[in-house]
Order: sequence, then C-alpha cells, then structure tokens
Amino acid sequence: MSCDFMALATPGVQGLHPYEAGKPVEELERELGISNIVKLASNENPLGPSGRAMAAAQAALADATRYPDSNGFGLKRALQRHYGLAANQLTLGNGSNDVLELIARAFLNPGDEVVFSEYAFAVYPIVTQACSATAVVTPARDYGHNLQAMAEAITERTRLLFIANPNNPTGTALMRDELVAFLDTVPEQVIVVLDEAYTEYVDQADFPDGLELLPRYPNLIVTRTFSKAWGLAGLRVGFAAANPVITDLLNRVRQPFNVSHLALAAAEAVLADSDYLQRSVELNRAGMQQLEEGLKLQGLGFIPSFGNFITVDVARPAQPVFEALLREGVIVRPLGPYRMPQHLRISIGLPEENDRFLRALRQVLAC
Amino acid sequence: MSCDFMALATPGVQGLHPYEAGKPVEELERELGISNIVKLASNENPLGPSGRAMAAAQAALADATRYPDSNGFGLKRALQRHYGLAANQLTLGNGSNDVLELIARAFLNPGDEVVFSEYAFAVYPIVTQACSATAVVTPARDYGHNLQAMAEAITERTRLLFIANPNNPTGTALMRDELVAFLDTVPEQVIVVLDEAYTEYVDQADFPDGLELLPRYPNLIVTRTFSKAWGLAGLRVGFAAANPVITDLLNRVRQPFNVSHLALAAAEAVLADSDYLQRSVELNRAGMQQLEEGLKLQGLGFIPSFGNFITVDVARPAQPVFEALLREGVIVRPLGPYRMPQHLRISIGLPEENDRFLRALRQVLAC
Repeated sequence: MSCDFMALATPGVQGLHPYEAGKPVEELERELGISNIVKLASNENPLGPSGRAMAAAQAALADATRYPDSNGFGLKRALQRHYGLAANQLTLGNGSNDVLELIARAFLNPGDEVVFSEYAFAVYPIVTQACSATAVVTPARDYGHNLQAMAEAITERTRLLFIANPNNPTGTALMRDELVAFLDTVPEQVIVVLDEAYTEYVDQADFPDGLELLPRYPNLIVTRTFSKAWGLAGLRVGFAAANPVITDLLNRVRQPFNVSHLALAAAEAVLADSDYLQRSVELNRAGMQQLEEGLKLQGLGFIPSFGNFITVDVARPAQPVFEALLREGVIVRPLGPYRMPQHLRISIGLPEENDRFLRALRQVLAC
Repeated sequence: MSCDFMALATPGVQGLHPYEAGKPVEELERELGISNIVKLASNENPLGPSGRAMAAAQAALADATRYPDSNGFGLKRALQRHYGLAANQLTLGNGSNDVLELIARAFLNPGDEVVFSEYAFAVYPIVTQACSATAVVTPARDYGHNLQAMAEAITERTRLLFIANPNNPTGTALMRDELVAFLDTVPEQVIVVLDEAYTEYVDQADFPDGLELLPRYPNLIVTRTFSKAWGLAGLRVGFAAANPVITDLLNRVRQPFNVSHLALAAAEAVLADSDYLQRSVELNRAGMQQLEEGLKLQGLGFIPSFGNFITVDVARPAQPVFEALLREGVIVRPLGPYRMPQHLRISIGLPEENDRFLRALRQVLAC
C-alpha cells in the first residue's frame, strides 16, 4: 500500500501509547509452560464473585439475544437507593475506564489542558492524549497528590483535573479536610474528576465520600467501579455521578448499549449483597496486614496503602525481580511504566496467595 | 450553580443528539401496564441464544472477578480460523457500535468530512458529530446507497466514508460488481468503512464479502457484529478487520477491557456453532416470507430486504400507527428519526410473533 495511514490519524492518536494490561493467567501459562499461577497484578477481588451476582447474570443469559436496556433502569434504581442519588446524576459505563473516557471526550478540545499527578492512574494520560489535549503532570508528595502543586498548575486552558482517592498505583489517600480545602480553590469551570475506584476498602472516619460532596461542588464528577470490592471486573461496569447538566453531556457521548445486560443484572444484584462487600473488605484488611508483616520481616519498604494492593520498594531494579517472580508462577505489576523503576505493586490475594508471593519474593531477592 | 457547563463541552458534543434505543419490553410493560409483549423493534435474533454460547458464558462466570483478556487471544484465534484473517488485522469491540466509534476517534479531527447516505445507520452521524467532524449526507437511490453521489461527495477534506451492506434501516444491498467499481474510484486516503452487521442473512451469489476485498483495498475497514445472526446482542461484541496499520491505530484508541470476558467466551463458542447460525438464517428466511405475504395481503408496500427486518410503507403518518401497535403489545420501530415518516421497520420474529404483528397491524390500520 502506498498510503501512510498513520499520518491520517489524529495528532493525539498518532502519539498514543495504549494501556498495558496485566498478563492473563492463560497467557503466562502459554508463554512459560507452567501452571498453578498466582495473579496479584490487576487489583482484582480474590474472593471470587458474589453468589447473588452470579445467579443474576446466569438468569439474564437467557436474554442474550436482546440488547441491554440502554437506560439501565434497574441498575440506576438500585444505585439511587444505595447511594441516595437521583437518576439524572448517573452515567453508567463499561467499567469506570469508560466513564473516564466519556468525560474526556465530552469536554476536551485539542490543546485543552488536563491536570493530574505524577504516579496517577495510566488511563488519565491515555484519554487526554486520545483527545489531542495536553497533559499537565504535577509532582507527587510522598507518592500521593500534591494538591498545592495541582492548584498552581491550573491555567485558563485547564478543562479537567483528575484525582484518584485512594490513588492507584501508590495506595495513598487524601483526607476530607485537605480535599475540601482544595476543591474550594478550584475555579468552577475546571471540572474535577474524583476517581473513587478503591473507596470501599477505606474505613477511616476522616476519609471523604465524594458522593456527599456533589451538592457542594457542581464541577465535581465522582467515578466508581464494580471491578474492585464488588468483584465484577470481568463483566465491565462502573458509573459516574455528577450534576444533571454534566450527566446529560456524558450520556450524549455514551454508546447506547455500552453496558452489557449481564453486567447490568449482576451489578444490580451485588449492590444488595452487603455481606459480600463486607467479606471482600475484611479479606483485604487481613491480607494487607499479612503482606505488611511479611515485607517488614524481609526488610523491605512499602507505601502504606488504602487500596487492595501494596506498592513495595525492592531497592533494586524491579523489572528483573518481576520477571524472576513470573518464573516462580507469581504475577505482580512492575511500575517502570509509572516511572517507579524500583517498585512492584502487589494486589492483595487470598492468604495462601499472599504467602506464596512472600516466599517467592524472598527466594528471588536472595539470588 | 453559576457555571454554564454545557458551554464547556466540545462543539460536537454540544450539538449531539444521542441514539434512541428501542424500548425494552420491561419499560413498555411498566408504562402501559400490560404484559405478553412482542418486541420486533431492534433487529434481534428471535431464536434465543446458542446453547454453546450460553454454556461458555456460564462457565466463564466463575472468573467474573478477573479482568477480561485485553488482547482477546481466544476469540481472535477463533476469528482467524473462521474467516482466514490474521490477528494483526483484528480489532475487538463492545458491539460493532464500539468499533465504528473507534474508527471515528482514530481518524476524525474537528472539521474533517464524513460521507454517508441518507437513511444510513444512526450511529454514523452520532460518531461524526461527537468528534466535531462534518457529516456529508448523500441522497439515497431507491432507499439504498447511491454510490455515484457518494463518489461525487468526496473532497480533499473527506476522511471517512460509511457504507452498510445490507443497509439498516432500509434492508437494501449492494452487489459485488457495483461495490468493487466504486471502491476502485475512492482515493486511498479516504477510509471506507463497510458495515456488514447483517451479512450473514444474505445468500445471493453476487453479494460481496467485504473480508475478501481487504487485500485489494488497504483503505477498507470491514465491521461485523455478534448481535444479529449470532444472537449475542446483550453481551456486546463485534469486530473490525483492516490492514495492520489501521488495526494498530484502532487498538490504540480501544479501551483495554472493552469486551467483557463473558462476551469473549460466548462469541468464541458461537463461532463454532454453525448449526445455530444456519437455524437463525433459515428462521429469518421463513419469517421474511411470512411477513412479505402478510403485508401484500393487506395491500401494503415494503422495501425488499436483505436483513433480518422489513421496512413497510403504511401510506399514512407512521408514528400514530406505531403507538397504536404499542397499545396492542407489539413494539416496532417508527422511522421518523430517519426522515421516513410513513415507514415502520419490523424485525423478523418467530412465526407466532410475526403473525401477532400482522393481525395487530390489520386491526390498527382498519381504525
């Protein structure tokens, strides 16, 4: 072919580097010819899915030939009841990745500025770049958000600002007072996206609930996911909550059938399964303690985490450690792509999985 | 709130009117307080899902806490075998709606021109508008594509051109000779999207297979869906096939987990269920004949259709007919939004559903 199709793409897409997903277990088994692999790489819920969610999805399978409900009536009704929101505040997404992208596409013109922090979730730079907008990355403070630096980075070209609380991949969290003080300084025409993918794991009294802040800040969008504590990563469902005007805009950009009917059914069912959520959070708390203690015994530093993962400083280049762990059948996440070349992120697993990781790590680091 | 958030949106999104989905049965039952509703509004497969697909999805439910395989290894391998394509030609989508949108987002800058026909699928203008690009709509010929008009509409600003074959909502089809003659005239820097959502229903010898045309036209993208003859609309899965450079660009824009793990599993399984496909197509053929005969008996004109639906001229404003049919418990699609105010589109149903529609239509038109 004579045509340079790459040159036909938008400037943003020409410069876009796609998200690198954690390796699926099947792929690693194929590559390495091993089995019995433990995957602690993608911050998934180790508990296995909610029985209620599975039953709902299974019942919905008989309707697989029918398009999903484009308006997500049942799930939105459940979200309204669970969180005290109105239907016209809700945008459903194919995971919260989808709503993060809808936000970018609704508001970003080429050249608009988007503020987010160093060590922020990889999807923020991707959706910014895909819209040919300009990323303004602020330096972190103790691996978390430096809100003063973020406030100072706002210009008249700033359209969006992303904050994850807790933050992935570092696990840091902002408490209510500092977040509110920051939001008070943000001009109303700058839309603040508060990504609360890991919020269910936090039980500190002074940790903020973004949904409660919505009435006070019309420029605030809160995103949530069913992929973490709710245990439905494979089904793809998340949502955004915001004021009705912003919600209208996001729903204009949304694909009409972006959430599958199985995901709608399963998410609605799991919202009623408070026992599942509680067990997820308790398993995470115990696993976090197990990993913290094990890492301390090995003399390794880590970033105290509010999420369902812990980020460890292996005090040497982490990529070879990651690869050696792979050969031991343990998949974790090296943070080189986040410019943290000596850190590994480990998702909290079942007790025996955490133990397997700790033993493999000790062995690998002893070499 | 004092801020005009609508004014903060991109120009395209400010002018965007979202797709109006067919009403789900549950919603209509709620509104009208009736049950036993027949839905012939969304070109869904009336056969119910493939048993193999359901079994695969059910087995995959146990892994609901895990993210899907971002690269769709298993489904891509099955597609390669089934269609003789290479993995680097394939882009998986959350339905073909998703791949149509990826194409627009990869290639459309604000102000670029997109050519499609009058009476074309509603998603083409939506993805064009969402990218702040300019739609160039060419007049139809006998409710189908006027390829000469489309060729003449191409300018140096034209980036994309959409053709659906068969076309939705009119059911018309282009045969191989005329399509190839047209493709030979399109400049290589204009990317032609050939949307073959309904291709499995066509059995005419001179009907083209877009996948076979790919080696000849590097600027061609073929889109397919599992929502129609394959019976998986609720699970959301489709794909694009194109040259590797275009495929790379589409995959850069693609959300890493855009297809759920249940959809991946079910689509892979149904591809091996040739019996299901055959039964779908035969049921459609018999139902089409039943509806054509029934409409002729009522003296109504219709557009001969190559899809799984038939578009009827009710020779009066169709919206009141649609509403009267609703009250009879039959949902069809009025085509006012497509500027066909006297037409209804009826999806082919089971024999008893087609009969129920024909009886309800006779009754409604007699009033």
